[in-house]
Amino acid sequence: MDNFTFCSPTLFAFGRGEERRTGELVRKSGGSRVLLHYGGGSIKRSGLYDRVMAALHEQGLSVCELGGVRPNPRSGLVYEGIALARRERVDFVLAVGGGSVIDSAKAIAAGAVYEGDFLDFYKGKIVTSSLPVGVVLTIPAAGSEGSPNTVITNEKTGVKKGGRGEVLRPRFAVLNPELCFTLPPYQSASGATDMMAHVLERYFTTTQNVELTDRLCEAVLLTVMSELPKVLRDPTDYDAQANLMWAGTVAHNNSCGVGRTQDWGSHALEHQLSALYDVAHGAGLAVMFPAWMRYVCHRDTARFVKLATRVFGCEENTADPMSTALEGIDRFVAFLRSVGMPTTFGEIGAREQDIPRMVELMGVSEEKKVGVFFPMGPRDVEAIYRLAL
Amino acid sequence: MDNFTFCSPTLFAFGRGEERRTGELVRKSGGSRVLLHYGGGSIKRSGLYDRVMAALHEQGLSVCELGGVRPNPRSGLVYEGIALARRERVDFVLAVGGGSVIDSAKAIAAGAVYEGDFLDFYKGKIVTSSLPVGVVLTIPAAGSEGSPNTVITNEKTGVKKGGRGEVLRPRFAVLNPELCFTLPPYQSASGATDMMAHVLERYFTTTQNVELTDRLCEAVLLTVMSELPKVLRDPTDYDAQANLMWAGTVAHNNSCGVGRTQDWGSHALEHQLSALYDVAHGAGLAVMFPAWMRYVCHRDTARFVKLATRVFGCEENTADPMSTALEGIDRFVAFLRSVGMPTTFGEIGAREQDIPRMVELMGVSEEKKVGVFFPMGPRDVEAIYRLAL
Repeated sequence: MDNFTFCSPTLFAFGRGEERRTGELVRKSGGSRVLLHYGGGSIKRSGLYDRVMAALHEQGLSVCELGGVRPNPRSGLVYEGIALARRERVDFVLAVGGGSVIDSAKAIAAGAVYEGDFLDFYKGKIVTSSLPVGVVLTIPAAGSEGSPNTVITNEKTGVKKGGRGEVLRPRFAVLNPELCFTLPPYQSASGATDMMAHVLERYFTTTQNVELTDRLCEAVLLTVMSELPKVLRDPTDYDAQANLMWAGTVAHNNSCGVGRTQDWGSHALEHQLSALYDVAHGAGLAVMFPAWMRYVCHRDTARFVKLATRVFGCEENTADPMSTALEGIDRFVAFLRSVGMPTTFGEIGAREQDIPRMVELMGVSEEKKVGVFFPMGPRDVEAIYRLAL
Repeated sequence: MDNFTFCSPTLFAFGRGEERRTGELVRKSGGSRVLLHYGGGSIKRSGLYDRVMAALHEQGLSVCELGGVRPNPRSGLVYEGIALARRERVDFVLAVGGGSVIDSAKAIAAGAVYEGDFLDFYKGKIVTSSLPVGVVLTIPAAGSEGSPNTVITNEKTGVKKGGRGEVLRPRFAVLNPELCFTLPPYQSASGATDMMAHVLERYFTTTQNVELTDRLCEAVLLTVMSELPKVLRDPTDYDAQANLMWAGTVAHNNSCGVGRTQDWGSHALEHQLSALYDVAHGAGLAVMFPAWMRYVCHRDTARFVKLATRVFGCEENTADPMSTALEGIDRFVAFLRSVGMPTTFGEIGAREQDIPRMVELMGVSEEKKVGVFFPMGPRDVEAIYRLAL
């Protein structure tokens, strides 16, 4: 096991009606002038906007707001948010929405106290100072409510990149599974795929003998696979939504990833897909992750066998481990298809002729590869995209 | 799933040599006048004391010290520590040791800023204010390094009781698995049994449909059962010690227990054993937990079947679930015996004629039962003690 430092100080307020505590939680986090950040009109139609506003006003907080975050959040709105936060002397950014809203809120919170261009944080500079961020989560998927990460698409270049910094972990996150009752099935399935991908990026490690985190990863994967079908059958199944929602947080707050190298190559491959086609992140991952797995499974076949037997219920073929590894991948694909996810380029409108552009956007070279379990150069990237055709 | 609030803000510094960061971590937690609390002389013989002292002095911290904590920590030393902390105007309590040292340090930290008798906190009063506590862990077991809990034995009455308060979660915990290389096998096994018990107290719940936390509990149990035998074969197996050490923290920081009722009856049963005989807590749990399981397994046999099949590798007998449940308990006992743990009264020197005294110490009545999965009255308690004979 590798040395690690782990600190997840986010307060999670989980369950029915917990959004009523939002004002109190902002106040306890030291906030008084709040920027409320959200996406489209769904939180207004559902009444959530009104309940959150009431909770904020009950605590005498001053509130300004900025809506309009779209999936795969864009830099333009972040600049607008930073200007607004400065103008209104905001001291707390409250994200009400899913991962895109949270990531955009984190960008605004970091950018508001930074003298340079906030996009520096999406080019490798670690965020070390930020306004505090709070979350009321409406879509379980990205895990951004408990993570130190944020992903933004640069509108000018079309490049989608991640930024990070421990200060970006939200001060609190309100998670009410009832807020997921109205999610369309495709969105629930995309979210769950994102969770599985977050776990798998950690599962595929070069660190040996990390049994506890292996087992924790497997626990989350097994849970997502048992709960998502229940949610798709009945989106008002509270317990299934609750297990799935909390799985999304656990999948990405790094409790499953401490003390081990992590890969993250598949996420990079997907970012180019969603930058070019604006596909849902989870759906893009459903296309790219199995392709990546097929390309790299010779690297540590035993690890793929472990996944296949412990998570996908395969019998181990000791005479031919690779057949077990491949069967595991097949079952993963079958699961994804069973929950309505695409698993090929064609299904998401991605085109073979765009592959060179995607390879270019990845920004890899033989000297600067991406991924840790399997460092990918340009030829690997191209081959994996082709496996996803 | 039940509503819950979860916040685990402890910073974990895990791995080889991390104790060198102790001074820096105290400083970052706002400490400048440190009470160093520890047990016997083992930390001096091992050189850990010197390394920690050097790290504290490097940061210019002032240090006073109080050693002498014994297993099942006693109230007398806590009073001494409180007086010392006040006299020296201590602003940080650093525990270097195992669960007993940490629990004693928490009692001192809470008592030092409390006007009344610190034992109030062990009679139901929640701790809401405390000096900050930090930990350098030497024995993976109690999980106190990441928990809001503390257990102290009242020397006058012989009563061993728990106290709690979220402010008691340590600010930081240094976990270096190398510090466990010199632990005697019996102590490693007792510690691992304590971890399993912490998970099982959470596993046995009345809350339905808590698949994620069920799976996380099972992940920790499976890990302990795979790693402890490696540690017993070779205590210098770094990775096995590392998995076991981190399992001890995960088992008790409540990440496996959120959103569900928990039982804690077996811990109460054990406390009377270790109060009367000063047996290692984990060894006492090895005696009491299986007895409790046999007595209560009719309450929710399906849950026992889940445990038996997922953790203890039993085949499910769908025609006779109770036989599967009991086979699971048998395998748990067989595991405990295989790692050198006692599983009967006789092996720990406990006597049948003391059972009435233990029942009395439990302080239960038909109106005031203990346990949630199975609320125990006096007759249940006596019967369970008899099952452990």
